[in-house]
Amino acid sequence: MMSESGKVPAPTIERLAIYSRPLEDLLESGTPVVSSERLAILCGVNPAQVRKDLAYFGEFGVRGLGYEVRELLRAIRTILATDRVWHLCIVGMGNLGRALVENENFKKRGYLFAAAFDVDNRKVGERLRCGLAIEPIAKIKELVGRLNVDIGVITTPQEDAQRVADLLTDAGVKSLLNFAPLQVRAPASCFVEHVDLGVKLENLAYHLTRLRGAKPHK
Amino acid sequence: MMSESGKVPAPTIERLAIYSRPLEDLLESGTPVVSSERLAILCGVNPAQVRKDLAYFGEFGVRGLGYEVRELLRAIRTILATDRVWHLCIVGMGNLGRALVENENFKKRGYLFAAAFDVDNRKVGERLRCGLAIEPIAKIKELVGRLNVDIGVITTPQEDAQRVADLLTDAGVKSLLNFAPLQVRAPASCFVEHVDLGVKLENLAYHLTRLRGAKPHK
Repeated sequence: MMSESGKVPAPTIERLAIYSRPLEDLLESGTPVVSSERLAILCGVNPAQVRKDLAYFGEFGVRGLGYEVRELLRAIRTILATDRVWHLCIVGMGNLGRALVENENFKKRGYLFAAAFDVDNRKVGERLRCGLAIEPIAKIKELVGRLNVDIGVITTPQEDAQRVADLLTDAGVKSLLNFAPLQVRAPASCFVEHVDLGVKLENLAYHLTRLRGAKPHK
Repeated sequence: MMSESGKVPAPTIERLAIYSRPLEDLLESGTPVVSSERLAILCGVNPAQVRKDLAYFGEFGVRGLGYEVRELLRAIRTILATDRVWHLCIVGMGNLGRALVENENFKKRGYLFAAAFDVDNRKVGERLRCGLAIEPIAKIKELVGRLNVDIGVITTPQEDAQRVADLLTDAGVKSLLNFAPLQVRAPASCFVEHVDLGVKLENLAYHLTRLRGAKPHK
């Protein structure tokens, strides 16, 4: 079912994750089949895009009817590797770090936070609502190894991000998800994904100005 | 300088915002010119992509040398409409809402939070670190109008998101940035952007499994 070429474009991978959200709801509500038109509306993309993206992975459709919800969701989870459990750690327990650790949706999808760290020793020992206690960054190496952490999430201020990235890659994480406003460097063996929350705002600004003719404030 | 067709692909717009980050640093450090290779490395994309994206907007380059940092940054800001001030409001003052309101980078780029609301009346009146006091959602209509709010940011739990989206669009916001795990509906006159923080994690999982051969935990 899965194309073995591995050359699936990154935006398609991101959209597969987006498609899985309404599919989870449809499955829960007992809907057996969904059309590409319906799925497209639920996801805010166009139907041709849905069909094109799913075509990368072979044949999921029931001709003339749409896609079998259960089969499509299972296939997407296999492709995205969300049919397994991933161990995460997070460094930087400010508001963003706490928001991520306490997000129930991550746990539902198999992303388990195994440890939480902070650079600031005054926060160390504090018990988070999710049950974890905040650990000092001096324990990154030991805990990443012991807890088999796959992915390190960085939510520190900009000035600490590179030092933390170095500690995490040195400890053996295979991948970094970086929210700090800085492109952290890592060895080629470590896959880094940057998340810039401001990018979406700039996308909105572009649409409002170019497409809607919004006028500046005085 | 700007192509007037308006048909610039959304991923290009997102990358322009990403290019602007290291350009800001280069400008601050007094670097006059940057090559597409250097800019590509700083942003974690490939140089051909940088050249292709910038080509949508005409000629920024100094032939054989690269791009003038100041000119390129100014052009990107004009394109993205980040050379002006936008008024935002935010609804849902949990950890994520607080992280966004207190993000200094938004303010630097002209995104000003003018009001913060919460569905939970027990939070109303609390003074945030940014100086705003939390308002009840009953005041959305009045404050959005009075403060000329362009963009409404939704950081509520899933079950409140649609009701809040309705209040915001009814109050006249032109655009929504929704972090709740639900595709909120809005009138066609309102541009909606969804941010799903889990999508990037799934992207990582895909890379780790398909490209790196990561094995499941026992």
